[in-house]
Amino acid sequence: MSIEEVIADALKLVTPDEEERERGKRAERTLRSRLDKVLEGTDISYEFVGSYARDTWLRGSLEIDVFLLFPLSYPTEELEKKGLEIGIEVVDEHELRYAAHPYVHGKVEGVEVDVVPCYRIGDASEIRTAVDRTPLHHRWLKDRIKGKENDVRLLKGFLKAGGIYGAEYRVKGFSGYLCELLIVFYGSFLETVRAGRNLRRDTVIDVKAGKSYRQRGNEKLLVIDPVDERRNVAANLSVDNLARFVQRCRAFLTSPSIDFFRCVDAEVSLQEIERELERRYVYCLKTARPDIVEDNLYTQLERGERKVFEHLQRLGFSPLRSASFADEENCYILVEVAVRELSPVTRRMGPVFEDEKNVERFLRKCRSRNQNPFIEDGRFWVYAERDVRLAGEAIKRFAGREWRAFGKNLGECVKNGFEVLEGKSVTECRNAFELAKFLGLISDTGV
Amino acid sequence: MSIEEVIADALKLVTPDEEERERGKRAERTLRSRLDKVLEGTDISYEFVGSYARDTWLRGSLEIDVFLLFPLSYPTEELEKKGLEIGIEVVDEHELRYAAHPYVHGKVEGVEVDVVPCYRIGDASEIRTAVDRTPLHHRWLKDRIKGKENDVRLLKGFLKAGGIYGAEYRVKGFSGYLCELLIVFYGSFLETVRAGRNLRRDTVIDVKAGKSYRQRGNEKLLVIDPVDERRNVAANLSVDNLARFVQRCRAFLTSPSIDFFRCVDAEVSLQEIERELERRYVYCLKTARPDIVEDNLYTQLERGERKVFEHLQRLGFSPLRSASFADEENCYILVEVAVRELSPVTRRMGPVFEDEKNVERFLRKCRSRNQNPFIEDGRFWVYAERDVRLAGEAIKRFAGREWRAFGKNLGECVKNGFEVLEGKSVTECRNAFELAKFLGLISDTGV
Repeated sequence: MSIEEVIADALKLVTPDEEERERGKRAERTLRSRLDKVLEGTDISYEFVGSYARDTWLRGSLEIDVFLLFPLSYPTEELEKKGLEIGIEVVDEHELRYAAHPYVHGKVEGVEVDVVPCYRIGDASEIRTAVDRTPLHHRWLKDRIKGKENDVRLLKGFLKAGGIYGAEYRVKGFSGYLCELLIVFYGSFLETVRAGRNLRRDTVIDVKAGKSYRQRGNEKLLVIDPVDERRNVAANLSVDNLARFVQRCRAFLTSPSIDFFRCVDAEVSLQEIERELERRYVYCLKTARPDIVEDNLYTQLERGERKVFEHLQRLGFSPLRSASFADEENCYILVEVAVRELSPVTRRMGPVFEDEKNVERFLRKCRSRNQNPFIEDGRFWVYAERDVRLAGEAIKRFAGREWRAFGKNLGECVKNGFEVLEGKSVTECRNAFELAKFLGLISDTGV
Repeated sequence: MSIEEVIADALKLVTPDEEERERGKRAERTLRSRLDKVLEGTDISYEFVGSYARDTWLRGSLEIDVFLLFPLSYPTEELEKKGLEIGIEVVDEHELRYAAHPYVHGKVEGVEVDVVPCYRIGDASEIRTAVDRTPLHHRWLKDRIKGKENDVRLLKGFLKAGGIYGAEYRVKGFSGYLCELLIVFYGSFLETVRAGRNLRRDTVIDVKAGKSYRQRGNEKLLVIDPVDERRNVAANLSVDNLARFVQRCRAFLTSPSIDFFRCVDAEVSLQEIERELERRYVYCLKTARPDIVEDNLYTQLERGERKVFEHLQRLGFSPLRSASFADEENCYILVEVAVRELSPVTRRMGPVFEDEKNVERFLRKCRSRNQNPFIEDGRFWVYAERDVRLAGEAIKRFAGREWRAFGKNLGECVKNGFEVLEGKSVTECRNAFELAKFLGLISDTGV
């Protein structure tokens, strides 16, 4: 199949059907009439923004974003309070969510709706809260994206199937806004993919100026926001996910296939996972999931993961790789090491021989412990019994003593209790996909 | 006991008795008469040099050094040939030895004698071979050391009991000439020890100028030869043996004792050695001793030791320390590691994602091997089975394949056969003292 044929086929997968569109329109009508009523006689207006407003949402991901625009005269607290009141009034089954400030998530006619209060501003210089930028984004894109809606959908579908769609901390992938800017910049899905194969860490894309270039010392893709040149739209995209995107573009161009738009669960045999876990040195620190927003959780989880890794490295267990994830109830930090068991002895560093005072102190200590020092490279050393010989033991001790290293909320959870799973029992984390990726049983290159 | 009393006692240990002196004189007389006869009517003269000539030899180490002085007109080959002929004629039971060039070692009236040919020169600028310097050393010291002979002996005895007397590669300690220069420079044994406690790597001793100072960037003790300012008399003294000397001086000044002049074998229990060998990860590479001069052997042995250490380090076995030594028949390289066994898997590095051509090549290789790559820090990686999991196995493979790393002659021996001892069987090297030092069962700080 030619690449054009594949794209034509893919369109069916990413474009909403009539029923979904109808549901959207019905919800929009209801929502508008409720908003018109509630806002009548106030100085607050509203605006439909985001992928629904621009007709760029991915099939099956219908969600309506409405922004309430407050005059700059409102104090922030007033805006927040009033915003929530209005939101709650116009949606069914509401719940509160948090971004820069709290907003209302709910349903209207069975469709997911976000109602977000913000300030009505003219340009980026007036921005007060992070969400104020969204209406500006909408206005910038609105006309420019016309006629290219399905290209945006193709790109989103292409990324989603590769696990790199979404700017949230858990994913660190491409935001919807970034997708639309790329389509505007390159002109179509196919052109985006063709350019994508050559993207680099040091690439700069200046959407507004219509040019891209390489910049020495630039360490991650920079996509300058056309409404705010200080902002990198790709700030949350990790280097590794950029790499996965680039590789995915190359693979798609070489062997186009509809599979690049299908979220297929990799086939992983649990037996194979268990076999690997039994012969390799893999550990899993398991603790309760703190009740905090996801981005916050994943920041702490990643930090904890790094601290465990560094601790094992310091002690000489030569960690190979680490990973972390959470399910509804628990958080998991995975780590594989090259060394399961260390020698009973280690060497401790003493002073250089010239430093008579500290040499004296060091030797006195050695004598009191019945240890025999030696000299190497002009420095005193001594053999000492190692505190912890097993990698699993080292993780347990670290988590037990250094629970603060896991961040505010996750740290509390670790303090209250954790387990270190080892060998086959690591499967208790019940995430075969993450385990298979971690063990290298399935590819993790975006393809 | 006061330090002066200890020194008075020590004198009895380091000064030769009448019988030894008499033996020396008798041998000297015989040797002189033989030399006078052989050299009669030639343009070759002779000179008694070294510790015998200056009356500074350590009790029990009587050895006479005679240098044959040839005019500069002799070609080197002629000097060597003639030198050996004369040497053979004047000693009994001769054997050939090698320094800068071959010389004769033998006995006269039961006393060890070296007969070394060299050129008769006026100063260091005329030096042709390394040994030409020796008569200059003798002439410089001869009068300056007068009255301080026993201080030289005390220093030699003090160093010998600490295992750091001798400039040969096996010892890397203080040469006899260096000892005499230090006594001339500091004035006495006690003053040398008092100054010794403060010696540093960056100390420079300018004997001729009568001053010492510190010099930035100087990485080992520099003692400028008074007869040749380009030469460091302490060139062969290792930093670690300087450190041992410094520590020995401090210890002696703090608690003076006759034991600092006694070569006492440390008491080591074989049981204790075996217990340590059983619980720690110690390996011993054993191979035949090549028939080469000692300095050459120890250079190769040290090089081989370093190569084994670096190889283990590269593979991830975290070596702690290594050592090497030889007995009459065999050479031994000892190495202790922190890691006995490594994980069955390791990670192999691939290209950065931007490098499309090499990424393609890397992925093709992974596919053909049924391996699943992953991306980390913008680079491709893959898990691979580790070649060697055990430290002992790694040493065996290295010695089997890379025998050339052990140097010309030792390498040949390794090529012809070696063993890697492990655990208790390491005691097969039959050197309890080296093992005890290596394992930290006795101190190795010069005290």
